[in-house]
Amino acid sequence: MAALVYEMELQPAFHDIDVMEIVWHGHYVKYLEIARCALLAQLDYDYPQMRASGYGWPIVDMRLKYVRPATFGQRIAVRCEIVEWECRLKINYLVRDVQTGRKLTSAYTIQVAVDMVTQQMQYVCPPVLWQKLGVQP
Amino acid sequence: MAALVYEMELQPAFHDIDVMEIVWHGHYVKYLEIARCALLAQLDYDYPQMRASGYGWPIVDMRLKYVRPATFGQRIAVRCEIVEWECRLKINYLVRDVQTGRKLTSAYTIQVAVDMVTQQMQYVCPPVLWQKLGVQP
Amino acid sequence: MAALVYEMELQPAFHDIDVMEIVWHGHYVKYLEIARCALLAQLDYDYPQMRASGYGWPIVDMRLKYVRPATFGQRIAVRCEIVEWECRLKINYLVRDVQTGRKLTSAYTIQVAVDMVTQQMQYVCPPVLWQKLGVQP
Amino acid sequence: MAALVYEMELQPAFHDIDVMEIVWHGHYVKYLEIARCALLAQLDYDYPQMRASGYGWPIVDMRLKYVRPATFGQRIAVRCEIVEWECRLKINYLVRDVQTGRKLTSAYTIQVAVDMVTQQMQYVCPPVLWQKLGVQP
Repeated sequence: MAALVYEMELQPAFHDIDVMEIVWHGHYVKYLEIARCALLAQLDYDYPQMRASGYGWPIVDMRLKYVRPATFGQRIAVRCEIVEWECRLKINYLVRDVQTGRKLTSAYTIQVAVDMVTQQMQYVCPPVLWQKLGVQP
Repeated sequence: MAALVYEMELQPAFHDIDVMEIVWHGHYVKYLEIARCALLAQLDYDYPQMRASGYGWPIVDMRLKYVRPATFGQRIAVRCEIVEWECRLKINYLVRDVQTGRKLTSAYTIQVAVDMVTQQMQYVCPPVLWQKLGVQP
Repeated sequence: MAALVYEMELQPAFHDIDVMEIVWHGHYVKYLEIARCALLAQLDYDYPQMRASGYGWPIVDMRLKYVRPATFGQRIAVRCEIVEWECRLKINYLVRDVQTGRKLTSAYTIQVAVDMVTQQMQYVCPPVLWQKLGVQP
Repeated sequence: MAALVYEMELQPAFHDIDVMEIVWHGHYVKYLEIARCALLAQLDYDYPQMRASGYGWPIVDMRLKYVRPATFGQRIAVRCEIVEWECRLKINYLVRDVQTGRKLTSAYTIQVAVDMVTQQMQYVCPPVLWQKLGVQP
């Protein structure tokens, strides 16, 4: 079974900071995506491979809980982990301050497979996902 | 009691469309904010008035459910409604296609008041919110 | 000859404001694009029609001069005008404060046609542009 | 004299790619800023130190020339170099493909000092810039 977890470090850019001097809440969606893509690339199933497999994987549900704000130049760690893969691809996220380890944000995203030819949403994940993840449905 | 509902029309810009030819899921956070700010401006409690009142109102929880995608130039309606104001400010959102009325996305955001001097989170909303909204706690 | 000018009003959103309490300079690129797309849509040659005509029109040169900053909720007018169409599509922009008429930003963008099949850049604009614009090369 | 040059590697994220399957031209402004901030941080004169010195440094002029597009996941190198510091801070940028070294984009930004108390633009750069850069005016 492949590693279904990935953790990376990021630093919020100047253009991510709002007038309250914290990262604007919407920019975390970018941080989640950067970590998710890195995780999926590690599994050889990032966006280009998804497309080549005939499936799009739109986000259908996303939730973020903001515990503490992040600021300009702060070193933050974004950890993501695949926790569901049978009928949908669910990934949990934890954003922490690198120095103290304190939780800043937690989140999840849920994606479903859509057949790119028929545009039909799949109610069970296609086997290509399980092969890439090295898991059993 | 003031109108706690606001609806506006938007059109996704070219730079909001991703390689799958739909609005990238993270950009909806901007659409929610544009509608929320218009609603709060109507109540004379948008960001500048919040600041003048001594409180920041960070988003602490946000959830979006994506039902159907939006595309370039599509006319979409964003409706938002304040549904909680006692201990936190909760706003529900509904994004629909203007022509068909079909639901595209539903969402909520939860904000809490933070005293800008003490940086303390308020466990009850400050009375200025109720005055602006014309509601009783 | 079609109107090669378009002017529209915009209001910078909260998420466009940086920690200096002004619109972050990179966000003006979005404002230019929103006005440019509205101008091109008026001429029936916006992004979808470009694509249908077999040409992409990437930006190859862009310059912005920032005279005065814009702030949250300020009403700004973005005016754009097509000024070259023979070998390249050049558009000039002027961003002004609505109330005072004072110039905030001036800019230009230059686009060239790229044949979507051969990926070859065109050194003369394709006739479809002139037809849509109602101009002579 | 301090090193007035900085080069870093970046990878365009999924949310930076437009429907033409290339990095949307406006997102390069972010890449320039990430590299510029890293250069200025190396010189101990990034945004927080600028602010502490009593000066804001808004961008007043910016130009980008796009030679070749960048795509999702491509490794790109962003090099920036301070080339003027007497009356204004001018930085040149070169964005290249890491594997081939081929030029993708060139750009410059020009910033001027603004006294944060008087809001007056400075027609000569304040000495703090020269001290941080280790240069003579």
